[in-house]
Order: sequence, then structure tokens, then C-alpha cells
Amino acid sequence: MFSPLIDELIESLRCLPGVGPKSAQKMALYLLEREHKGADRLAGALRSALDKVGRCSSCRTLTEEPECSICRSEKRNNGVMCIVETPADVIAIESSGCFSGRYFVLMGHLSPIDGIGPDELGLDKLKNIVEYNNITEVIIATNSTVEGEATSYFIAELLKDLHIDVSRIAHGVPMGGELEYVDGNTLALALDGRKKL
Amino acid sequence: MFSPLIDELIESLRCLPGVGPKSAQKMALYLLEREHKGADRLAGALRSALDKVGRCSSCRTLTEEPECSICRSEKRNNGVMCIVETPADVIAIESSGCFSGRYFVLMGHLSPIDGIGPDELGLDKLKNIVEYNNITEVIIATNSTVEGEATSYFIAELLKDLHIDVSRIAHGVPMGGELEYVDGNTLALALDGRKKL
Repeated sequence: MFSPLIDELIESLRCLPGVGPKSAQKMALYLLEREHKGADRLAGALRSALDKVGRCSSCRTLTEEPECSICRSEKRNNGVMCIVETPADVIAIESSGCFSGRYFVLMGHLSPIDGIGPDELGLDKLKNIVEYNNITEVIIATNSTVEGEATSYFIAELLKDLHIDVSRIAHGVPMGGELEYVDGNTLALALDGRKKL
Repeated sequence: MFSPLIDELIESLRCLPGVGPKSAQKMALYLLEREHKGADRLAGALRSALDKVGRCSSCRTLTEEPECSICRSEKRNNGVMCIVETPADVIAIESSGCFSGRYFVLMGHLSPIDGIGPDELGLDKLKNIVEYNNITEVIIATNSTVEGEATSYFIAELLKDLHIDVSRIAHGVPMGGELEYVDGNTLALALDGRKKL
């Protein structure tokens, strides 16, 4: 509908998650009408990130360094490892300020239908790290979805014969949550995991 | 929070309209984890659009050619001109298939507070085109907002002494609109602009 270069820009903006044809058109016109500077910065940032960002050689998170800043840090407790699905989960846990160990980022979850098995999640590497790095405790913090639970179970089985503590983060009513609006499964887990006062 | 290049990508995605910090983070990680190809295409499309897209020399819409495809077309009725605020409005009217004349794109509306006056909207050029190109009718299709109405009024005054037909698109109840849910101003306009059956 527009000229070819504008159409191409609209079409390529659609690769962004949650951006449909109408938003893509709005974004493209906004950039071309009023945000040349921002668009230029975005093009540059995309190019450098694509060229340089790779995986951390220890924890597999996204970083442009050979090792990410958490793995490089000497202030972390190297005996405890938290296993999460994505780099965003690392940030979420770091923001809580309650964990000072190291991470292992699966970059996904087991999903045989999409061809994602233990190899794609680097589980052999995980076992190696746990075995040869004096890790004494592993906390599995995959998502509370069917796939996340399956992945958690698989990892627990994998680490069983190493005789270390393997735990799963607690499930229950979120802070500030009103019982009335909490779903049945969560309530069942909250009751099941009750703690003595 | 992430490594510098990823943070820069997240920050630069925020120049997109409607994208806040959370969506920008989601987009950046999505691109880096799963959409290298799309991100590459987006970076390229941004760069070419920035380098090449400018304004049509006649109607001021966005295009990479000296003149846009509508202005170049020989099938259009060159005697009628429709004045709109943005390139997206041109596409909206073109999609309706009900107009075959030429356009003039203001690329905004009068807004003294933002420093947008008649010069920024190219109104001198508009008057020239209307005066020297045998335009017999001008349809003003700026938005039905306060600024759009003010712009429309200003243009009507500007073209007054050229003695051509100047009209404003009709306002009223939209097709499929239920009276119950139409606001009072629109209803007042709909009653005022009633047509004999």
C-alpha cells in the first residue's frame, strides 16, 4: 500500500512479539515521520547485538562477553545453583535480591513436539558443571507450566545419583493475592505445601 | 541489568510507540533468543528506510521516489484534491476505494504550542498547487479532533479567494453504529447534517 521500502519496514516490524499489521504500520510511520534519531539508534543497536551477543560459556545466558557478569563475579556463592528457563528469569530473581548463587539458563523447556530435548537445553553440560564444581545445592526454578514441571522433573532425575540437594521453588498463593481470586490448582499446592507456624 | 549491548537494545526499542520497559525487554530477548533472521531483516529495513525515504515532491507523503505512486499515476482525477493529516489517512481513504483524485498530506495539524504553524504543514505549497493545477474541488479530510477542525477551518479560509469548491467530509453516526453508544457531539453533528430522503 505504501512505497516498497515503507512496506518492507512494516513487514519486518511484524517479527516483534505482539506486533500485528496495524501496530507495525503505526510504528513504521511514527519512526519515519517523527523518530529518525530513535530509528537510527535502534538499527545500530540491533546490528551490534546481533553481531556480538552470544551465550555465556558457563551459564548459557545471553551476553556479549565470553562469560556473563554473574558467572565472572567473585562475590557469588558458587556452591548453590538456580536453574531457570530464560535470561529474563535471571533478572527477575536478581531483582528480588534473595539469591546470591550462580545460575544455569536452559533457554527454553523440554518440548519434544518442537524438537527441544535434553541436548538443546544443555543438560549434559549442566550435569558436568554440577558434578565437577562443588555445587552442593540445586534449586529448580522453571516455570509452573506443564512443560516447566516436566523439565523440572527430568532435571531432578538427572541429578539424582550425584547425591546433592535438589529442590523446587515453592508454589502457593502469591503475596498480596486474595484467596477468592486464586485458582484451584494453586490453592491445592498452597494447602499441600503448608508450613507449621 | 543485562549485558550492555542487550540493555542498549532494550532501551532503543522503547522509541517505538506503545512499547514500555517490559515489552521492550520481551522484544529484545525474543529477537536474540529466537529471531536472529527477523532482527537482521528489521535492522536492514530500518537502515534503508532511513537512508532513502523522504517526502513526495507534490503531495508531501512519505516515499523513496521523488514523487509518490499516486501523484505519478495517470489514472487519477487531477481536478479533485483530498487534504489529510498523515500517510496512514491516505491508505485508509484508498482502501475505501471511493476516491480517485489526488492528495495533499499535511504531515500533522496546526498546533501552535508544538511550534507547528502553516509553514510546517506546507500550506503555502498547498495554495500554489491548488491555484496553478486546475484543481476544481478540495475535500478537507483532517481528523475530527479540535486540532483537525481548526486546521480544516484555517485551510478553508486560505482557499476562500480562489473561488473553488471547498468541502469537509461528513460527520455523523458511523456505519453499524448503534445510536445508544454514539456520543452526544456526534449525534448533534448527525442531526445537523441530516439529508432528505
